[in-house]
Amino acid sequence: MSRYWSELARGLSPYVPGEQPRIPGLVKLNTNESPFGPSPMVLEAIRSAAADTLRLYPDPQSTRLREVLAEHHGVAPEQVFVGNGSDEVLAHTFAALLKQPGPLLFPDVTYSFYPVYCRLFGIAHETVPLDSRMRIRIPDYVDRGGAIIIPNPNAPTGIALPRAEIEQLVSARSDAPVVIDEAYVDFGADSAIPLIRDHPNLLVVQTLSKSRALAGLRVGYAIGDQALVEALTRVKDSFNSYPLGRPAQAGAIAAIQDEAYFQETRAAIIANRESLTASLIRLGFDVLPSCANFVFARHPRHTGQALSAALRERAVLVRHFSGPRVSDFIRITIGSKADLDRLTEALAECLATPSNA
Amino acid sequence: MSRYWSELARGLSPYVPGEQPRIPGLVKLNTNESPFGPSPMVLEAIRSAAADTLRLYPDPQSTRLREVLAEHHGVAPEQVFVGNGSDEVLAHTFAALLKQPGPLLFPDVTYSFYPVYCRLFGIAHETVPLDSRMRIRIPDYVDRGGAIIIPNPNAPTGIALPRAEIEQLVSARSDAPVVIDEAYVDFGADSAIPLIRDHPNLLVVQTLSKSRALAGLRVGYAIGDQALVEALTRVKDSFNSYPLGRPAQAGAIAAIQDEAYFQETRAAIIANRESLTASLIRLGFDVLPSCANFVFARHPRHTGQALSAALRERAVLVRHFSGPRVSDFIRITIGSKADLDRLTEALAECLATPSNA
Repeated sequence: MSRYWSELARGLSPYVPGEQPRIPGLVKLNTNESPFGPSPMVLEAIRSAAADTLRLYPDPQSTRLREVLAEHHGVAPEQVFVGNGSDEVLAHTFAALLKQPGPLLFPDVTYSFYPVYCRLFGIAHETVPLDSRMRIRIPDYVDRGGAIIIPNPNAPTGIALPRAEIEQLVSARSDAPVVIDEAYVDFGADSAIPLIRDHPNLLVVQTLSKSRALAGLRVGYAIGDQALVEALTRVKDSFNSYPLGRPAQAGAIAAIQDEAYFQETRAAIIANRESLTASLIRLGFDVLPSCANFVFARHPRHTGQALSAALRERAVLVRHFSGPRVSDFIRITIGSKADLDRLTEALAECLATPSNA
Repeated sequence: MSRYWSELARGLSPYVPGEQPRIPGLVKLNTNESPFGPSPMVLEAIRSAAADTLRLYPDPQSTRLREVLAEHHGVAPEQVFVGNGSDEVLAHTFAALLKQPGPLLFPDVTYSFYPVYCRLFGIAHETVPLDSRMRIRIPDYVDRGGAIIIPNPNAPTGIALPRAEIEQLVSARSDAPVVIDEAYVDFGADSAIPLIRDHPNLLVVQTLSKSRALAGLRVGYAIGDQALVEALTRVKDSFNSYPLGRPAQAGAIAAIQDEAYFQETRAAIIANRESLTASLIRLGFDVLPSCANFVFARHPRHTGQALSAALRERAVLVRHFSGPRVSDFIRITIGSKADLDRLTEALAECLATPSNA
C-alpha cells in the first residue's frame, strides 16, 4: 500500500481466479474450461482478422456481433450488450443496474466475484442462504426489497432452477432489476431469455467462455429490455468505448454461427458429466445434480481440502473453496473422457489411503 | 431511461469516440490511427494464437507481455500494468489513484474522456487553462493541491512538454499521484519513464493503438512504482481478472519485439507530419507544433466546423471539437502520403470557395 492509493483501492478485496499453472501433463479440471477447442470456423475468423485492418479501431458498438446474437436468441440487436468477458458485463451491470438504494440480494453460496463487485461499486448486499439441499429457494427472494442477482445454474453447486421459478421471481419482484447469470446455462438448464419480452426488469448474462470454448478470447454478453441495455452502454461508454477488439468480434460471430459444432460439443460434455457422476457415486461421493460443465461433490470420509491436495499431488487440479458447507466439496470441471479417467483413477487412489481429514 | 437504472447510470455523460463510418474510398483522418498495418510478426503471432488453446483462460497477469514491456522500457515487470486498451488502463487509474479527497487537475483542452471518468467514479475536478499559445504551463499545477493527469504530448494540440518540466512537476507535487498519459509520445516527445526510479508518485500510461498500429487489438499499459501498479491490479482484480485475451497478449508481445518495424513506421509518420505541416502553412493555416501523429490547425478565414464539413463532402474525414478556442481548429491524423495528398487537394478546394464561417 502507498499513500498515493485512493480510499477505494485501499478498501478492495479482489477476486482470486482459479490458478493457471504451467505443469506439463497436468489434468486441469479447476476453471470450467471446455475440453474441446473452439469451432474451426472461429479459428479461421480470427486468422482472417489478423490483417492490416488491425491498425483501425474496432466497431465500438460491435454491431455485427450484436446482430448475430440477437438473431440467435430471437431478440432485437438493441436488446443485446457485449463486453470483454461476462465478468466485464457483470461489472457494468453492478454499476448500471444493481447499485440501488436497498441491499442487493444473492445466494450465500454463489459466484465469489459478486461481493467483490459490491465492494468496488459501494453496493450494500445481503446473502440469502441455500436450503439444506444446497438449492436456491425463490420464495426467500420474493418477500424482500433490493435488486437480485442469481446464477442459473448456480455455481459452484451446478443446480438449476426451472424457468417457471425464474418467471415467478421476476414477476413478483417487478419493482427491482433481476439479473440471471447464465454462464453455464447451455449444459442443461433453461434460459430465461424468453421471459424478457414480458419483463422489463430482467437481464440475462451469458458467456462464450464455457459452452463456446472461448475462455481465451474474452467475450460475454447480456440480453434484456432495451432500456436496461442502454444503461449498460452508458457505463461502458464512460469506461472504455472499445471493449472488444477485431479478433474478438470476428471470433465471437463465428462461434455463434457454428450451431452444429456447439450442439455436438455441449452434448459430449453433458454425456461426460453423466458418466463422471455415475463413477463418483460408485466411489461413495455425494454428487449434487448438475446442469453445468462441472460437478460439486463431497465424500463422507474425506474433506474437500484433503481430496484436492491429494489430487494435486497426482497432477490433477480441481477447485476447492473454503467457507461453511462448501469446504466439504470439490468442484470438478467436466473434461475429456481421458482426463476424467485420470481423475477417477487418482480419486480411487486417494480414497484407498487413510483420510487426512 | 427506466426506473431500473442506478443513480450512477442516470448521472453519466458518456464519451463520444470519433466516428467509424463505412464509406468506400473514404480518407479517414479522424481517429489517429496509423496509416501502416501492424508488424507482420504481430499478424503471425495472432494467427498462431488462433488455436485450440483458446478454450483455456489467458494468463490473468499477462506475465510474458509485462516482462517484454519491462525489458523494453528498462523497468521491472512489477512496475508494469496492462489493460484492454489505454482507456481501460486510465479508467482503473482514475479509480485506484486519481480519486483523492481534493479535486483532480487537468488541462481545459485535453483528452475529453477525463471528465467522463470523473463522473463515473465521482471525482471532483478542476481544469487548468492552456496559455495563449495553447500550451500547458507547469507552474499552474505546482501551486495547488490535488492529483494531476496530463497528456504528453497533449491532445488535441499535439504540443509536448520537455522531460525536465515533467520532472519539475512530479518533484514539486510529490504529495500527490501524477499521471502522464503518453498515448502519442513515440512521435517525437520524451517519455517520462526514466523519472519513475526517483518518483514514486509518477505513473506513465502508453498504448499500442497508435505507434504500434494496433487500435483494433486493444492493448494499453502503465508503468510506475510497484506500489502504484499494485493499486491498479487490485482494481483490475475487482473488475475483470482476464482483461487481455490470448490473441491480444500474443500480438502485443510481437509488437514490442519488432523494434525495426516500429522505428521505420514511426519515422515515416513523423516525416509525413512535417511534410503536411509545410503544406498546411502554404495554404495559410496556423499549425500548432505537433509531436503526435496528428496536427491541430486553424485557418484565419474558415471555422473548424465549416472546414470539417466541407472536407466530409469530399470524402475526407477529420475531427472537429466544439468548445471555446478548440472549435477554430481541425485535428488531422497523419495518414499515408496518398491520403495526405488527397486531404491537401480537398482543403485547397474548400479554401477556394467562399467561407461558410
